[in-house]
Amino acid sequence: MTRFALTLEFDGTPFMGLQRQKHGPSVQQAIETAAAAITQEDVRMQAAGRTDAGVHAIAMRAHIDVEKPLSAFQMMEALNARLRPQPIAVIGCQIVADAWHARFSCIERRYLYRICNRRAPLALSAGRAWQVAPPLDEEQMQAAAQILIGTHDFTTFRSVHCQSQSPVKSLSLLQVERSGEDIMIHAAARSFLHHQVRSMVGCVALVGMGRWTIDDLGAALAARNRQRLGLNAPAHGLYFKEAVYAVAG
Amino acid sequence: MTRFALTLEFDGTPFMGLQRQKHGPSVQQAIETAAAAITQEDVRMQAAGRTDAGVHAIAMRAHIDVEKPLSAFQMMEALNARLRPQPIAVIGCQIVADAWHARFSCIERRYLYRICNRRAPLALSAGRAWQVAPPLDEEQMQAAAQILIGTHDFTTFRSVHCQSQSPVKSLSLLQVERSGEDIMIHAAARSFLHHQVRSMVGCVALVGMGRWTIDDLGAALAARNRQRLGLNAPAHGLYFKEAVYAVAG
Repeated sequence: MTRFALTLEFDGTPFMGLQRQKHGPSVQQAIETAAAAITQEDVRMQAAGRTDAGVHAIAMRAHIDVEKPLSAFQMMEALNARLRPQPIAVIGCQIVADAWHARFSCIERRYLYRICNRRAPLALSAGRAWQVAPPLDEEQMQAAAQILIGTHDFTTFRSVHCQSQSPVKSLSLLQVERSGEDIMIHAAARSFLHHQVRSMVGCVALVGMGRWTIDDLGAALAARNRQRLGLNAPAHGLYFKEAVYAVAG
Repeated sequence: MTRFALTLEFDGTPFMGLQRQKHGPSVQQAIETAAAAITQEDVRMQAAGRTDAGVHAIAMRAHIDVEKPLSAFQMMEALNARLRPQPIAVIGCQIVADAWHARFSCIERRYLYRICNRRAPLALSAGRAWQVAPPLDEEQMQAAAQILIGTHDFTTFRSVHCQSQSPVKSLSLLQVERSGEDIMIHAAARSFLHHQVRSMVGCVALVGMGRWTIDDLGAALAARNRQRLGLNAPAHGLYFKEAVYAVAG
């Protein structure tokens, strides 16, 4: 048995999410179907994160276990050939030790959220960023984001469908940067609750619009109540950017 | 009569090109149809450049003349509302003097060509860059590009469908820059021949692959013969980036 660590880029638009779903296409199904066709084996994929419908990946990490003897290069080429024309690309492939696990060995997940802060609709970046028309104050957003850093009960920022055992998570980074009309929000944590990044971004954007104060955000966090969520940012602005491992993949 | 100067962003994928065509949708048709619906007038659009099918625009400049009294803001909002869901956005709109002409007042056109130099297919940038698998030497490409700068007969780099009276053009910039797997090629000239940017990019890429020497490129230019063109780069990597005017639009 050989374990292949994969790095995946995908456009989340046509998928119901990363994880296999009964009611529509998923990234997991696409990879497993391609790998099964290559190997004639029943292949299961494990991934670092479970992204929602419409969420993109710049570099999702995953692994598959295969009996058929193939080099990492052969596997990458064969997967990419089988995945066409679906918008998933295997941009990295390595053979790793069996102890390496894409999900359980991952010690940090990093996301990027892209807001396009302009009045005009998006043409080139349609489906790739959240268009926000009111002018956003990125300095206020950055100041607001800092109160979410650290270990908190993030119930307010958690989907009702979240399967995590605890709502307590440790947020290590939430950085807001403007570049022209783009506002990039970088988030990092060991793990996130379902919808946590989108919910934090939505509320930080409310502060940027002047509709919430930083104290309003603090009160929403302290309330530990999903009813106090101000806004959940749309999926299509979110990118899974990086998975960090203590041992090389 | 009021002249509105427009700045347009568009995804060229679904269009037969900027200019109105009998056999399919165009950016010009979309703008004229939207403007006619707003004003009940027969509106014609003039644009700084005539981009091909599949070519994108970051900031194309154009103008329309309208009798109906509207502010620049009202025109921009109304056009964007009517253009949905087509991937065209009016990202700027100003009222300008009648002497200002989007095409004839333009003194320089600037294009960007994006190559994604990697073996894996493109997922997030599909249709937005030219994927080139062989490793490209961007320093050789930059050196090659410099021999095209200046005033030359660019017949080799000209489409047989080109309507320009003369094949002689003055290329002021052809700059090759790498950022990770992206190679960005910036081109500027008062005007270009049909397919000139794509043809220059294709041949410069051949040098980057090591299939052509810089001397081969020079010989192809000197031949003034379309048969000597090495490669025409695909439309979907090309972006109309900027139109420069001596007087403000």
